Amino acid sequence: MKTPFSTGRKPAFKNAVFALVIAALPLFAGAQELAQNIPVVSPEMGEDGTVTFRIKAPEATLVQLSGNWMPFGPDGNGGFAQQMTSLEKGEDDVWSVAIPAMEPELYAYAFMVDGVRTLDPANKNIVRDGRFSTASVLYVPGPASDLYWAKTGPKGSVRAVWYESPTLGLTRRMFVYTPPGYEDSNENYPVLYLLHGGGGDEEAWPTLGTAANILDNLINAGKAKPMLVVMTNGNPDQAAAFTVSPPVEVASAGIGGMASMQFEKSLVQDVIPYVEKHFPVKTGKENRALTGLSMGGLQTMNTTFENPELFDYIGVMSMGFADLSRFGINIDHSKREQQILALKAAAPKVYWIACGKEDFLIESVVTMRAELDKHDFPYVYRESPGGHTWTNWRIYLSEFAPMLFQ
Amino acid sequence: MKTPFSTGRKPAFKNAVFALVIAALPLFAGAQELAQNIPVVSPEMGEDGTVTFRIKAPEATLVQLSGNWMPFGPDGNGGFAQQMTSLEKGEDDVWSVAIPAMEPELYAYAFMVDGVRTLDPANKNIVRDGRFSTASVLYVPGPASDLYWAKTGPKGSVRAVWYESPTLGLTRRMFVYTPPGYEDSNENYPVLYLLHGGGGDEEAWPTLGTAANILDNLINAGKAKPMLVVMTNGNPDQAAAFTVSPPVEVASAGIGGMASMQFEKSLVQDVIPYVEKHFPVKTGKENRALTGLSMGGLQTMNTTFENPELFDYIGVMSMGFADLSRFGINIDHSKREQQILALKAAAPKVYWIACGKEDFLIESVVTMRAELDKHDFPYVYRESPGGHTWTNWRIYLSEFAPMLFQ
Repeated sequence: MKTPFSTGRKPAFKNAVFALVIAALPLFAGAQELAQNIPVVSPEMGEDGTVTFRIKAPEATLVQLSGNWMPFGPDGNGGFAQQMTSLEKGEDDVWSVAIPAMEPELYAYAFMVDGVRTLDPANKNIVRDGRFSTASVLYVPGPASDLYWAKTGPKGSVRAVWYESPTLGLTRRMFVYTPPGYEDSNENYPVLYLLHGGGGDEEAWPTLGTAANILDNLINAGKAKPMLVVMTNGNPDQAAAFTVSPPVEVASAGIGGMASMQFEKSLVQDVIPYVEKHFPVKTGKENRALTGLSMGGLQTMNTTFENPELFDYIGVMSMGFADLSRFGINIDHSKREQQILALKAAAPKVYWIACGKEDFLIESVVTMRAELDKHDFPYVYRESPGGHTWTNWRIYLSEFAPMLFQ
Repeated sequence: MKTPFSTGRKPAFKNAVFALVIAALPLFAGAQELAQNIPVVSPEMGEDGTVTFRIKAPEATLVQLSGNWMPFGPDGNGGFAQQMTSLEKGEDDVWSVAIPAMEPELYAYAFMVDGVRTLDPANKNIVRDGRFSTASVLYVPGPASDLYWAKTGPKGSVRAVWYESPTLGLTRRMFVYTPPGYEDSNENYPVLYLLHGGGGDEEAWPTLGTAANILDNLINAGKAKPMLVVMTNGNPDQAAAFTVSPPVEVASAGIGGMASMQFEKSLVQDVIPYVEKHFPVKTGKENRALTGLSMGGLQTMNTTFENPELFDYIGVMSMGFADLSRFGINIDHSKREQQILALKAAAPKVYWIACGKEDFLIESVVTMRAELDKHDFPYVYRESPGGHTWTNWRIYLSEFAPMLFQ
């Protein structure tokens, strides 16, 4: 994380030129940091697994660290929130805290500086989670995070593809992963359709989800079949992420029209036909898989209940038979029994349900399993530690992909 | 920018569920903001072109805004820095400033809260500029920024491609833009190789540079020929952006080995052969263009001086015959006269030099032009307002691309 400019230079002329050039190279530099020429290194990984977080805040009275490895708890206002750790002020107005023995993982964090949420100014690795959140990123290498990191060896490729969606009346963006060797091969590939959650968009799986690295690493290790992975935008009110294209008006139901069933229709009517026309893929249900998290889990259920003959591999992550009416999302449960029986008759090869023990939707998964059990619907259930988090969804992808197209 | 969750809900139970669910959806939420349930809207665009920036900072004594539309000036410490504007504290501890009549552009900005550089917590559109900087993004729509925005109509596609670089001993990542209609066409395309600047990486042109939108819009308007655009990583010490892959040791010269000439060699020996083997492209110098900004401008000069027969279209942005020895970058000027004459003999169709009037490297462009003039070397010179900025580089791309392959 250390920049190559960490050495102070004394002569006044050089300093002036130095500050000007450095300020001009990026969008703009943190002026005070440069002027004082004291680089803050954060996060810094020690050899014993301790990670030290630092931020220079001369005037602050309370600096806290909020990381996605910390538990949730009461926020003192009747709600729940991420718990935080306080930093201590040291020399040169630099606040710091050392977190011992951080497990290998891909983490997201931010500081709260006197109540202002502040990304780590010393860490240029930042990530956006859809419409709701931004964070600084920390990668702690090790066996448990090994799948998320690009390695030497053959690599797949991710492409942004714009396709026509007559169903939604939009030209929309999706990302398509093609496996190592794709360009030089005459093979046809099976396809995994991979859906993000509420508030997210088509950039979620390629960035937060590190989908390409996970697939590359599984495929290169012989643990997953070479496949295409199609990562759509699940919000029917968006052509693409809001950073690229503004939202449009839709007959809304819930967040961004997420319960309008319009995305599910466009997946079947627009996305799959586009992919099967424009890419060298195998068709038929035995060559199609669908999974998604949270809202994407709901969309996976909706799509496969409505179209039981489309997919042989179905994964529902962090979502069950939930009552989401408080979000304006009303699910038609009257057809459920009939849908379960129809999907059971279609006999998909894999129906996989994964949820974290501490997920706020775990009860909806209990309800879902009870319903499925009542109809002797075969499925595999995977319960993991943790909650409704990208840590879990990366793990779930790494476990689901190896089950496909075997 | 307003989230769909701006309405307060009173009953205690609902509030608890609400806070929990919202906190769980993103990576993690800004807990205090949620608990107090007062959404801050920032930036907010008025109909008269005024943009209001806001941040809630209850304890702060000085909140400033730093935007890349503001001029540079003395920083009070013997250096130069971006000038800043102060915000005023209003109700509910929200600081704000209204900037009147902002011209259509794609802007980058941040707050300084009591000296701490803080991205706008209310704006989830953030961008990273290489190793050096992060910023919040503001897009002001209008004629001058129209080229940077995705529109309806045919779209090209950007793909991440990993290729072998025996020259650097790395499997490296680049982005390749393919034009609208590419997937359904049997055409072969010419290729523009597009290089980023010092501190940047292969993600710079696809994100900050909005290269795909610019090309889509020019091609759809009939102003540029359909072409491929290859966006490499110009740092010989990187396989890919540091967010994806750690830097490696190289025989360094300057920042990340940028003056080692190793990137230039890999461009000629690895990148061009890969592209010409794996994509449907036209070969020969009349079908190749090369341009880059700052360090990429230097690499463009180096590559074309060393290989005068490779490119018919050459663009040097924001770089001239500069003395960069203070960065550890030593350029061999002894061959310059001979190189100029060799390139003149090869007679590229376009040699284009572009620089901002206020660019800190403008003197090096004056020197370069004097040298070229001395040898009657034909070139087109474009001097723009402004400095060493992405605003200029986006404009330059939109002006250079239409000159190519005509």
